[in-house]
Amino acid sequence: MQANRRGRRRDGAEAKPDAGASARYRTLVNPFDPMRMFSDDQIEHIHGSALQVLETIGIRMLLPEARSILAAAGADVDHSTLTVRIDRSLVEDALRRAPSSVMLHAPSPDRHVEIGGRNVVIGPVAGPPHVTDMERGRRVATLADYQDLVRLTQHYDILHVNAALAEPQDVPPPLRHYATMRAQLTLSDKAPWVFCRGTPQVRDCFAMLRLGLGLTEEEFESHPYCWTVINTNSPFQLDIPMLQGLIDFARAGQLAVVTPFTLAGAMAPVTIVGALTQQHAEALAGIVVSQLARPGAPVCYGCFTSNVDMKSGSPAFGTPEYVKAAWASGQLARRIGLPWRSSSTTASNVTDAQAAYESQMSLWGALLGGCNILLHGAGWLEGGLSASFEKFIVDIEMLQMFAELFAPTPVSEDDMGMAAMAAVGPGGHYFAAEHTMSRYRTAFYAPLISDWSNFGRWQETGSLTATERATRMWKNVLADFAPPRRDAARIEALDDFIARREREGGAPPES
Amino acid sequence: MQANRRGRRRDGAEAKPDAGASARYRTLVNPFDPMRMFSDDQIEHIHGSALQVLETIGIRMLLPEARSILAAAGADVDHSTLTVRIDRSLVEDALRRAPSSVMLHAPSPDRHVEIGGRNVVIGPVAGPPHVTDMERGRRVATLADYQDLVRLTQHYDILHVNAALAEPQDVPPPLRHYATMRAQLTLSDKAPWVFCRGTPQVRDCFAMLRLGLGLTEEEFESHPYCWTVINTNSPFQLDIPMLQGLIDFARAGQLAVVTPFTLAGAMAPVTIVGALTQQHAEALAGIVVSQLARPGAPVCYGCFTSNVDMKSGSPAFGTPEYVKAAWASGQLARRIGLPWRSSSTTASNVTDAQAAYESQMSLWGALLGGCNILLHGAGWLEGGLSASFEKFIVDIEMLQMFAELFAPTPVSEDDMGMAAMAAVGPGGHYFAAEHTMSRYRTAFYAPLISDWSNFGRWQETGSLTATERATRMWKNVLADFAPPRRDAARIEALDDFIARREREGGAPPES
Repeated sequence: MQANRRGRRRDGAEAKPDAGASARYRTLVNPFDPMRMFSDDQIEHIHGSALQVLETIGIRMLLPEARSILAAAGADVDHSTLTVRIDRSLVEDALRRAPSSVMLHAPSPDRHVEIGGRNVVIGPVAGPPHVTDMERGRRVATLADYQDLVRLTQHYDILHVNAALAEPQDVPPPLRHYATMRAQLTLSDKAPWVFCRGTPQVRDCFAMLRLGLGLTEEEFESHPYCWTVINTNSPFQLDIPMLQGLIDFARAGQLAVVTPFTLAGAMAPVTIVGALTQQHAEALAGIVVSQLARPGAPVCYGCFTSNVDMKSGSPAFGTPEYVKAAWASGQLARRIGLPWRSSSTTASNVTDAQAAYESQMSLWGALLGGCNILLHGAGWLEGGLSASFEKFIVDIEMLQMFAELFAPTPVSEDDMGMAAMAAVGPGGHYFAAEHTMSRYRTAFYAPLISDWSNFGRWQETGSLTATERATRMWKNVLADFAPPRRDAARIEALDDFIARREREGGAPPES
Repeated sequence: MQANRRGRRRDGAEAKPDAGASARYRTLVNPFDPMRMFSDDQIEHIHGSALQVLETIGIRMLLPEARSILAAAGADVDHSTLTVRIDRSLVEDALRRAPSSVMLHAPSPDRHVEIGGRNVVIGPVAGPPHVTDMERGRRVATLADYQDLVRLTQHYDILHVNAALAEPQDVPPPLRHYATMRAQLTLSDKAPWVFCRGTPQVRDCFAMLRLGLGLTEEEFESHPYCWTVINTNSPFQLDIPMLQGLIDFARAGQLAVVTPFTLAGAMAPVTIVGALTQQHAEALAGIVVSQLARPGAPVCYGCFTSNVDMKSGSPAFGTPEYVKAAWASGQLARRIGLPWRSSSTTASNVTDAQAAYESQMSLWGALLGGCNILLHGAGWLEGGLSASFEKFIVDIEMLQMFAELFAPTPVSEDDMGMAAMAAVGPGGHYFAAEHTMSRYRTAFYAPLISDWSNFGRWQETGSLTATERATRMWKNVLADFAPPRRDAARIEALDDFIARREREGGAPPES
């Protein structure tokens, strides 16, 4: 019998890209009621306390334009400390305006994804300065690595959108966004990611998107075609590029995910409930800026609350505290009626058992918590300081297992198989039963790298760990990669724009 | 700052057994509502279909005494096929009699555990013929290995009961139960496990327990002091030692967990719903035998439904299908009002990422499904064919993370820390805040082997994987192990009994 349900061999050696066969992962709907960490009253109390924080402590906003927008709306701006205190009525106005669900448009219409409700949208790792794999070791990321990570993201249907991947440090910062946007628009047909490093770069990225997708400015601004994450500088601060990004994205109708980086015990209170209150206050502040810049702008509620090692100050991820914070964050997002973003994370320095169990904890925190958009879904290692090619594949395996867990389970009379049981009877077996033969090809998830062979067979095939098997898998995917068909004229227009902007010196990041 | 909350150093090098410090894990209560895989109607339909299976297909029972007991109760016995068809009224009678919760007594009263309700009781691996570790490699298990696994089980408070561990194959089968019971009664004060390999061995074990614990026969039979698992020979069969065990355990008031080994696609229907129906029918048959042997005997509902690799027939564990079956099994156990047993499992041949993510999937299936007693909680590898010392430690880490997830989360006004937030303000940090200083020692789970240090520090300390760090941990625990205090006179009586029985040739296993 053969179980290569998705056209992939277990050993990975003959894995062939087969996007069609896994297209069932292109839409992921969570059938389970979200886990609840706190009572409704406790969630209400955290929400109310966050409103109080915004009214009393406020948020330092380093961008004058943001302070002006808030002041014009009636917020109390302290010009000496750059701190804005936001009345709860402003928050409530913003929450009324923000959409509860967002349709993120992609270059290919069949890659459009809805973020909200029971939908789960997954993106890969975002942001590491390094990449690592078992063949080439750990190194500073280059554009070639970035492009390979776009290819891996494009290949797996369980990844629905692009993300920042790794920083291509061989491209100078003023020119980097041209290279990353070009790679996304030529190697992928999934919604691209834009890094908010100041208005000039964001404007360039929006222009590239319009050229690459053949959109007028009006068409572009009528739907979100890209997404970004706005991190607060916890505690209680938003910096210039982040605020510019919030405003630029809102005005252009593009999707911003506001994510405080609240590490309990370091940049946030040492308690879960305190860190969540701060997270909620900071996220609400960002959401208010977004909705004042353009009412109804697409915005998501992001969480990243975790804890630190109190001995060293090192951030920890996928901890029990992380799961608690995730489930509570899902409740807070639903309380304010916004889609919720979470992450798959680990502090491990290698794709080992720790990397797997911490990422699993994060995934259960996110996915059972009702997460709508999962960032860092594949490839995150070292607390986000490396993108790992092997971890990428291990993560894809874990994500696909969740997709299968979320898939419907056949329960008809025929599926129950009472006749098969009667025919097999005591002491028999079902291998040859018609009930089995008619279903075995699609009955079970066929893994990418999990090896279920016995010890002897496993030894004969080289005694490889899952991580070593992952090396073969990513190499095969990259070797066989074929980019999606793109419109040649649009890519030419994109390239002309990039060439012109590069001649002009590009756009240095703001700080 | 120091975070060695339980007196253990992160690097494991100086780990000291500190049972007192982790005694909070001795009682584990699951605060979360159990996950539901199916609707109540669907569960009712599976239950009803299982009753129909028992009435029409029946169960082949190889032990004449079991058939006689069933016949006397009114079941329909086909003597030519040894098959017993069981009317649903017999099942309903049994379910009315079986207790919904069981207090398993241990040699030390503070190790008594209640199995039922929201309680979670965890035991280690049971049954592998091999053991493996990174220093000595994979090998046939010996009594020395068995004793070491008892020591590891005794050391960690998150393990609440003993289990079969690995088979000490250097002890002849007729004498093996003396060695394993002696090890449990001298190296541990947690409730022991008895393997049901026929009435003579079980009687020996009960006699050893009475001697070792200083109990009269009446005292012994008034509470469960040991536990066992009764596996059906799926499909639809119970063999002689298993039926003897069911009857012997029931009559002595000891705890039997009835667990069908229903591998979907092999010994059970290829569908989840079909495999569950068969599992349920087989478990109910065992429960009926138990309750006819002694009404009210302590018995648990066990599940082991998983799927096979349809290419090779190899069993798979920790799959999406496994999680679905686990959650549904919890619902079925609650439907019939019995405590539910599940397992932590993996098919991996090495303690790698696969071992971790498959075990995590199993754990979430069990623990979020509302499992009351988890077997194979530490050390299971290779689909149960090896007990791994490193996997044991990795599993303990994962279990302790669940225990912390289940622990209450402080939510008072003081915990929220509004004053600390105001004092820290925009751009500050919480490291030195009084709110932090008064809580940091116990705020977060301090891991056993997870390494949260950055890449440079991790390299300096040897670039060890979690599995390699686990080697140091189990070696330290064994080096420092001190057995619990036992009554010398009772142990002498136990040894006299063993010496006599060994002179008599012991008790060969039944088959």
